[in-house]
Amino acid sequence: MESIIVLKIGGNVIDNPSVLEAVLRDFAAWQTPRILVHGGGKVADKLMEKLGVAPKMIEGRRITDRETLDIITMVYAGLINKNIVATLQKHSCNAIGLTGADANVIPARKRPVKEIDFGFAGDIDPKYISGDVLDNLLKTGLIPVMAPVTHDGAGSLLNTNADTIASSVAIALAKIYRVQLIFCFEKNGVLRDPADERSVIQFLDEALFRKYKEENVITAGMIPKLDNAFAALHNGVAEVRICNPNGLKAGQLNGTSIRVKR
Amino acid sequence: MESIIVLKIGGNVIDNPSVLEAVLRDFAAWQTPRILVHGGGKVADKLMEKLGVAPKMIEGRRITDRETLDIITMVYAGLINKNIVATLQKHSCNAIGLTGADANVIPARKRPVKEIDFGFAGDIDPKYISGDVLDNLLKTGLIPVMAPVTHDGAGSLLNTNADTIASSVAIALAKIYRVQLIFCFEKNGVLRDPADERSVIQFLDEALFRKYKEENVITAGMIPKLDNAFAALHNGVAEVRICNPNGLKAGQLNGTSIRVKR
Repeated sequence: MESIIVLKIGGNVIDNPSVLEAVLRDFAAWQTPRILVHGGGKVADKLMEKLGVAPKMIEGRRITDRETLDIITMVYAGLINKNIVATLQKHSCNAIGLTGADANVIPARKRPVKEIDFGFAGDIDPKYISGDVLDNLLKTGLIPVMAPVTHDGAGSLLNTNADTIASSVAIALAKIYRVQLIFCFEKNGVLRDPADERSVIQFLDEALFRKYKEENVITAGMIPKLDNAFAALHNGVAEVRICNPNGLKAGQLNGTSIRVKR
Repeated sequence: MESIIVLKIGGNVIDNPSVLEAVLRDFAAWQTPRILVHGGGKVADKLMEKLGVAPKMIEGRRITDRETLDIITMVYAGLINKNIVATLQKHSCNAIGLTGADANVIPARKRPVKEIDFGFAGDIDPKYISGDVLDNLLKTGLIPVMAPVTHDGAGSLLNTNADTIASSVAIALAKIYRVQLIFCFEKNGVLRDPADERSVIQFLDEALFRKYKEENVITAGMIPKLDNAFAALHNGVAEVRICNPNGLKAGQLNGTSIRVKR
């Protein structure tokens, strides 16, 4: 089975132009088939502020109303995605930017309204992701760059979490490739002490994850990221790593390796 | 030779949601290979106004400064392109949105500074357009939807006229396909009297075009559109038509047919 890397880059990487440039240069230099998934960063928040659109929150959770969806579409699928593509092209990497609507790569479902109406938030299921379409693009030498926007098949775009897109795409491709999924963000990896960048947990399995959650060593935003990572490993993905941009350089391996018992 | 249609839809079509929806429904229903090229419409101007970014003009010509480029990228490549793609997907047309940077389909050159510095404006040459990349996408059943944004290969996106993109793509594809190029806009065709929608010029060749220009029958924005049309016909494109949205319905032919002596 051929190998492929699915690299997710987080908001903090996108918000720092020199870090982003370095990450894209490293990504362009890789020789394996690969897919880049990017998050949103703070650009959308800044644009909302400039336009006087207040973030809609219910019980601390973000709601994607029509105005927010339009801004997200402009920033994620337009500004960020196309500038990443242009930068990769500069580095001779034949990138092609995609949302989930393009080539119907990621059909999604508007999140059902229960206690909270999340608005135009899209939930996805790896089994509906078209690994074949991505594989066709890869086979013609193209490198997909995916924005965290999907669609409902009924004409509406939807806002979808980039980590979820990365792990779902990784799972969909696991039928065709040996998939390595990398979450690249600003920290050195999963940390024992968030204040200490040297406290990287090198290997993390589910027993340790449970233990660290109980001890409040792993909290907040890291939990859904790790849930995504374990879900990917249970669904055919060969390897998951969480690292910082230095871990993307050839020959460098840093960060946290996520494992499950096989 | 297989036939292909390159359809350019103008700003006024994009600015009218019900007209746009009807055009996309008709386009989706066509059975031939086809490519859609869209312009920008007034959304970018409205966003500039909301953001307090004044349009930069020199000698009546629009300048694309950095702020304008970012807004154009957000609106053309993000909001408009992706909503068109989602709408086509709703109508079972497997659309894929592209700028010229994606898959390096349209490499451009930043317009050289002479009397005027146009900023991030991109000039293109049909001979550098990758007809093969478009053909590969078409052969896998995908329908390209092109935003009027290109790139310079050095990491910068560029603003490029949508009519020029349409005619250049048509010329590039003429090596592989019998190409019909259609410019769809709000008027019934090229008019003898701009105030009278019934005054459509049914057939226009270069001699007539020269005559109408001298007589000021054809003026202003129509002249570059027709220059593009004749350039396309001189470079292998089989047919050019300028029509309104009704001309896109199956079996309907209206508007102006542009012709050259073969």
